[in-house]
Amino acid sequence: MPDFNHQEPNQPGLDHANSSQSESSRTGAEPQDNRIAAIDLGSNSFHMIIAKQLQGELRTVEKRGEKVQLAAGLNERGYLSEESMQRGLSCLRGFAKHLQGFKPEAVTVVATNALRVARNRSEFISRAEEILGFQIELIAGREEARLIYLGVSHTQADDEGKRLVIDIGGGSTELIIGERFESKALESLFMGCVSYTRQFFSDGEISELNFHRAVTRARRELLEIQQTYKKIGWNEVIGSSGTIRATEKILISKGWSEQGITREGLNKLCQWLTSHKTIADIELPDFKPLRQQVFIAGVAILKGIFDTFKINIMHYSDGALREGALWDLIGRSGHEDVRQRTVNAMQQRFHVNQEQARRVKDCALGLLDQVEKDWKLPSTARKWLLWAAELHEVGLSITHHQFQKHGAYLVQHSDMAGFTRQGQELLAVLLKGHRRKFPLSGIESLSVMVRQQVRYICLLLRLSAVLNHSRGAVKLPEIECQGKSDAITLIFPKGWFGQHPLTQDDLLVEAEYLKAAGLTLVVAEEA
Amino acid sequence: MPDFNHQEPNQPGLDHANSSQSESSRTGAEPQDNRIAAIDLGSNSFHMIIAKQLQGELRTVEKRGEKVQLAAGLNERGYLSEESMQRGLSCLRGFAKHLQGFKPEAVTVVATNALRVARNRSEFISRAEEILGFQIELIAGREEARLIYLGVSHTQADDEGKRLVIDIGGGSTELIIGERFESKALESLFMGCVSYTRQFFSDGEISELNFHRAVTRARRELLEIQQTYKKIGWNEVIGSSGTIRATEKILISKGWSEQGITREGLNKLCQWLTSHKTIADIELPDFKPLRQQVFIAGVAILKGIFDTFKINIMHYSDGALREGALWDLIGRSGHEDVRQRTVNAMQQRFHVNQEQARRVKDCALGLLDQVEKDWKLPSTARKWLLWAAELHEVGLSITHHQFQKHGAYLVQHSDMAGFTRQGQELLAVLLKGHRRKFPLSGIESLSVMVRQQVRYICLLLRLSAVLNHSRGAVKLPEIECQGKSDAITLIFPKGWFGQHPLTQDDLLVEAEYLKAAGLTLVVAEEA
Repeated sequence: MPDFNHQEPNQPGLDHANSSQSESSRTGAEPQDNRIAAIDLGSNSFHMIIAKQLQGELRTVEKRGEKVQLAAGLNERGYLSEESMQRGLSCLRGFAKHLQGFKPEAVTVVATNALRVARNRSEFISRAEEILGFQIELIAGREEARLIYLGVSHTQADDEGKRLVIDIGGGSTELIIGERFESKALESLFMGCVSYTRQFFSDGEISELNFHRAVTRARRELLEIQQTYKKIGWNEVIGSSGTIRATEKILISKGWSEQGITREGLNKLCQWLTSHKTIADIELPDFKPLRQQVFIAGVAILKGIFDTFKINIMHYSDGALREGALWDLIGRSGHEDVRQRTVNAMQQRFHVNQEQARRVKDCALGLLDQVEKDWKLPSTARKWLLWAAELHEVGLSITHHQFQKHGAYLVQHSDMAGFTRQGQELLAVLLKGHRRKFPLSGIESLSVMVRQQVRYICLLLRLSAVLNHSRGAVKLPEIECQGKSDAITLIFPKGWFGQHPLTQDDLLVEAEYLKAAGLTLVVAEEA
Repeated sequence: MPDFNHQEPNQPGLDHANSSQSESSRTGAEPQDNRIAAIDLGSNSFHMIIAKQLQGELRTVEKRGEKVQLAAGLNERGYLSEESMQRGLSCLRGFAKHLQGFKPEAVTVVATNALRVARNRSEFISRAEEILGFQIELIAGREEARLIYLGVSHTQADDEGKRLVIDIGGGSTELIIGERFESKALESLFMGCVSYTRQFFSDGEISELNFHRAVTRARRELLEIQQTYKKIGWNEVIGSSGTIRATEKILISKGWSEQGITREGLNKLCQWLTSHKTIADIELPDFKPLRQQVFIAGVAILKGIFDTFKINIMHYSDGALREGALWDLIGRSGHEDVRQRTVNAMQQRFHVNQEQARRVKDCALGLLDQVEKDWKLPSTARKWLLWAAELHEVGLSITHHQFQKHGAYLVQHSDMAGFTRQGQELLAVLLKGHRRKFPLSGIESLSVMVRQQVRYICLLLRLSAVLNHSRGAVKLPEIECQGKSDAITLIFPKGWFGQHPLTQDDLLVEAEYLKAAGLTLVVAEEA
């Protein structure tokens, strides 16, 4: 649970940086409290940005990038080669030096497509976390798109009018339409300059046919979103990513465009590129060799995008995933936690009974207030309990039978803006485990650092669900609540169970479920 | 696919009765064309009803029931004992004699809770199908509730006003609120007279405490639906099932009620029952021993229902699941196929883009028109293709990534009124297989009788999805289409691909997917 880390570094067991044996020493420089950092583990490049927060502005202090070409190291079975992992880890050793003394809540590390698809990602991630001393968050394609838009929009004038933002990565391409800081359409497609190099230019040779095939395949990928995007429309087109920056640079240096990437200029570039016999023949004096290698594939994708959306001119923006991740980090600790909006939208989309969700939520938070100190729960625990309560019945949109499993399926697989993969897993465990069997094995699958907290959060969610079984027919009394290690005591007003035998029966059944999971529920009436 | 059978008995490979080696001879009496039959394989009893259709009315010709107590034969691991299976099969041998000469489309056989939960159900079902010569449809709890309501409502005056209908079965209890022939709320709860006998009266002894526990457990089960049902409200309460019939009978014979089951009468019955020490002590002269054995558990459930819903009087109706199944059978071949309504409602609920669904549907049915004869497809194939087209994008409500799998999950697990479990499985296979890999293993899991047809339906669905990839941006031309064994040829107007290279590219990719599944796609232009 990266988020636990972000906000509660001083809670025992939640501070990854303190509990893991980081290669980088933590005893060095004092943290500078207004500095935050983001790292983006992309398929082609790893990037790091460090910035100072100054009155709601971010001032960049340090910016680094390295073309580690992780995706190029994926073999056909989907495993990252040791060599490519070493490239990535060595880059991270360099980054780690700059992050000494940073608190966990001031650093966000996001991983994208190459690690989404790599079957041995957990090996890479744990080695990388060891080096960095910070948790790595695996994000889904649309979440990547959302963060890119957030990054780009902060580099632009705060105008009205819609923007189409394009980011051609190593393994995926994100296309977003947004207005001001809000995205209206998000897509992440499986095409990138590294993967297309492998698919269409693996032998390093260039032909018009190969180039055309790559463009056609890109257009085919875009076909599905073309109509939707055109319907929404846009006023300007902005590109981020290395491919687009390199394209703009070369167009201007060759005199094929005065500013930005024009359709004409791009066509000239395509002609020029395909006039070479091999990738090695292309003379790109300012380019690093690794950029040169994947450049033509990136341009083919860009050409596919220009053709599909009939773009006349695109401007490059320096803002990207890492900048977006920084802004998101700031938002989470402020009042703009996008995850809350996501949860509300999901309630709507799947027709959750909001009254019942509110009852369970209020009850759960009321219990939490009484036990969070006893159980040393971090303040972020409140958010997870709240979201789980708001979504615990989402599976009813499918059917009542085993709806806890359907709810888990929905939060596991849905696009949930702001949530990482791990965050969705955590919610899924809570939803699946909110009734019937306690989710022991689900909790075991989570990071060891959060397991005990999740046990307690799950316990509170379950009790609140049981107590609200009647869906408002039984008005709940004030319940006093005490937390001990792996145990909870609920004390009801005197005589209450005499009037509410069904609730008592329910709690007895629940106590059995909890007992099987090593948790003790004691229910009593006031003396 | 039972439904294939219902309507297309003369198509080769689809007529289960002709292709299976039925124990009952098929060479006997000629079919009487206006007779239809329904069999209900319940947890406690098996029932059969045979009726004649006369001007939209049904006249019962034969009615049989036997308390085979299938659910009582479930062991703790969820397996049916050989003994209980034998009881069931022997009952079905008796039924089968009455069904000689019936066409498959005139018979519906539905199985409920005991077979829903039995792990070795497929063994029992295949032995039972062999004896009966008709396919058995496993139905979900809410589908059972819907059919019960349909059965009960046809026995009642066609009045305005809402009815609460209760059916206490051996393994589940259905509660429905409906008006006229329309149900407004459907629930199926895991409590029944057989399962409660095992849980609360397994040693045959009666105590006030045991009885009270059974009532409380039933009330606890009802707690969750109580508020919803009360909000909808009702004007009268009707019960079906053996438990309720027996209760009414005994109340009247003892003079505890003049008609129907009154609250007072039921309370007297409870007192009387709990005044006995053992089940064997209860004197119920007109009762068969097996009914006597599960009677007190059924009454405890009934008492829980009366208490929860504060019922004053309940009347017994003779209509039940089997009658409902008969009416549903008639509806399917007429204009009232409830499944179409279900598909439309599901499109709504999960926000399906109806325009795209319509495009794919129209295209698919246009192709079907041209090949159904070549491929000897039954007319019911049209329905499945149509529904699959209407729902093929339903998984997008979760996310775009692998939405074919999410769609399959949704149709597999949702309550879909009118569909059997097998029908939902079939739809799931089509949805999952409508893009990317052809669903070979999914098709293998279906009944051998429908596999070849499903291959073809799936092929048509896939082609229609590919052809409409542009979501309306590309207007499709008239496409000529020819079907051969495991092959299809699409012929486009001359010059069309020159203008639409992306569609051609798409079809080439699709041809590769199909090739891997042993299917040939030939694409050509007119000469």
